[in-house]
Amino acid sequence: MRKIGLDELGDIALGAALLGSGGGGDPYIGKLMAHGAIKERGPVTMITPEEVPDDALVLPIAMMGAPTVLGEKAANGGEYRLLYDMARQFYGRDFYAVMPMEAGGVNSMLPFAAAARLGLPIVDCDGMGRAFPELQMVTFTIGGVNATPLALTDEKGNSTIIKTVGNKWTEDIARAICMTCGGSVSVALYIMEGRTLKAFGVSGIVSRTQRLGEAIRNAKNVEGKTPEEAFLSASEGHGIFSGKISDVRREVRGGFNFGSVVLEGIGGDRGKRAEIEFQNENLLARVEGKIRATTPDLICLVDTETFVPIPTDALKYGKRAMVVALECYPLWRTQEDLALVGPRYFGYDADYVPVEELNGRTK
Amino acid sequence: MRKIGLDELGDIALGAALLGSGGGGDPYIGKLMAHGAIKERGPVTMITPEEVPDDALVLPIAMMGAPTVLGEKAANGGEYRLLYDMARQFYGRDFYAVMPMEAGGVNSMLPFAAAARLGLPIVDCDGMGRAFPELQMVTFTIGGVNATPLALTDEKGNSTIIKTVGNKWTEDIARAICMTCGGSVSVALYIMEGRTLKAFGVSGIVSRTQRLGEAIRNAKNVEGKTPEEAFLSASEGHGIFSGKISDVRREVRGGFNFGSVVLEGIGGDRGKRAEIEFQNENLLARVEGKIRATTPDLICLVDTETFVPIPTDALKYGKRAMVVALECYPLWRTQEDLALVGPRYFGYDADYVPVEELNGRTK
Repeated sequence: MRKIGLDELGDIALGAALLGSGGGGDPYIGKLMAHGAIKERGPVTMITPEEVPDDALVLPIAMMGAPTVLGEKAANGGEYRLLYDMARQFYGRDFYAVMPMEAGGVNSMLPFAAAARLGLPIVDCDGMGRAFPELQMVTFTIGGVNATPLALTDEKGNSTIIKTVGNKWTEDIARAICMTCGGSVSVALYIMEGRTLKAFGVSGIVSRTQRLGEAIRNAKNVEGKTPEEAFLSASEGHGIFSGKISDVRREVRGGFNFGSVVLEGIGGDRGKRAEIEFQNENLLARVEGKIRATTPDLICLVDTETFVPIPTDALKYGKRAMVVALECYPLWRTQEDLALVGPRYFGYDADYVPVEELNGRTK
Repeated sequence: MRKIGLDELGDIALGAALLGSGGGGDPYIGKLMAHGAIKERGPVTMITPEEVPDDALVLPIAMMGAPTVLGEKAANGGEYRLLYDMARQFYGRDFYAVMPMEAGGVNSMLPFAAAARLGLPIVDCDGMGRAFPELQMVTFTIGGVNATPLALTDEKGNSTIIKTVGNKWTEDIARAICMTCGGSVSVALYIMEGRTLKAFGVSGIVSRTQRLGEAIRNAKNVEGKTPEEAFLSASEGHGIFSGKISDVRREVRGGFNFGSVVLEGIGGDRGKRAEIEFQNENLLARVEGKIRATTPDLICLVDTETFVPIPTDALKYGKRAMVVALECYPLWRTQEDLALVGPRYFGYDADYVPVEELNGRTK
């Protein structure tokens, strides 16, 4: 158990941008909301999964839809109380804590806003260990946990409770409501008991996110290492490529951002070419036509000087970026999980090979 | 209080096709479902609104989406129990009776299936007195009644409870879910107390529907009257035009059927031309370019020999049809209601004029 105040929140937001793997939404907007809530209500208590009683219910909180729309909608914080009350009416029980479902991107921050406003602790755990575009893509789906009853609300006060016969149905129905309600909604989903989150959750992910943020912030101040070495070592990242962005293609289809970015090598990679393909998140990285990393491993572009993550929607011609890959949560590497989040699910004709096998251990 | 068995059901289905005004879905599929339920569980008790205690809760039942899809989905009847239980959990109370929300078309029948399966009476009342394409188009909207909490389920077992800040939001959100779930869902909506349905409901509409069915069935057996005279007199209909269908145009947009049908006059109307425009339901009838009836009055095409109603999706070149208009429920004729269901809502540059003023009383 420890306190998360404004300083810790800053590092978590920075690390969450890295776990966003190019997507997940800029944590900045979420950080503003969490900042406001913590300033008003005080620091949030973060507990480990082991500190949650086996039979206590935990309320995971997330936003769904386009984070840019979230910014325009001026969410007022009241939606978390509404979600709590809706879920409470359904279960007839109170909740012990809140939890992020997606530690990457903007959804790393909103559970802090919810925890502060609800006066509840937050659990150091999520269901992805990164960001993914669809809500069935969580470790809990593999654990047989139903995403529903899911509570959903928009900022106008429209709300729904959804129950489905499968987590992909939940994604489809909630997505349709989200689009109808203006493109951004708040949800509580995968409501579960302590024993379940201990069995299937990505334990300690918020603390890891914080360390990633510190790694970015401190990269230039590590004695005996170049900033790049320091960053890669502290983040346990594989440096795959360094280059200058020469081409970006983007297309919006069905509410998702599809596209690719091409980099022309600099430094040791001069003369080579890398291409990253994305659907909201970066999904596949090739160097000289050869696959060097795929989903569910995390593929991140970071500024070559500051190591600040570059989301796909900020990719610009001429920008210098390093392609870094992080090893995903081990559970994602089973066959069953790869069917849910592996390259073939996203339409690539490629088998998953762990990033450390593709690149040799560089850390 | 009276019993509705298979014979009564047949006449109600026939009359409901007329109240469908060309849309609302062929009652046939719903009749099969109600037939099955009544055969299994026995006749349904129908009560008047006055027989519902003021503080008793009533559960209106309807399907939403495309009735043709309903036929393919082989609804099993279990969805009504599920809707009941969902609504019961929300209200923490039992329901006194079920009720149709839309007495025209297929939704005239499904509440009978629900009543038989749930062992509840059905109230002789609806919120339209006809069929309309969108769920906010009910007299209860004018009465300030919220359509939500709305319970929705598909035949697979996916279900949602929706709460909104306005009935048009309910339409939009439920429509999006309906499309995602395959185009046809069952709903319980406008759940209300007895006092509310007495104040704003279209009282006696099921009995009227049954009389319309009898009028169609008996038209040829009334002494001293031609079948047409007998039908128009018993249905209180205005005979606007008789002709042969010479042109049908159809277009599907946003899940709705848009189109128009042209008739070349026969008999007394020889040499004249009529055009009916529809969006699911028939909305505007012109003879020789002059408006003779508009929504919310009911515009129906019936077979010139049998007086059996012809839905818009059965309009065919060469078919002989009489255009009949029925006066709508008086409440629809106020300014506030015309904003909800009048010709301008549907995009016509025309003011509503009651059908009896446009045609002179012919009954």
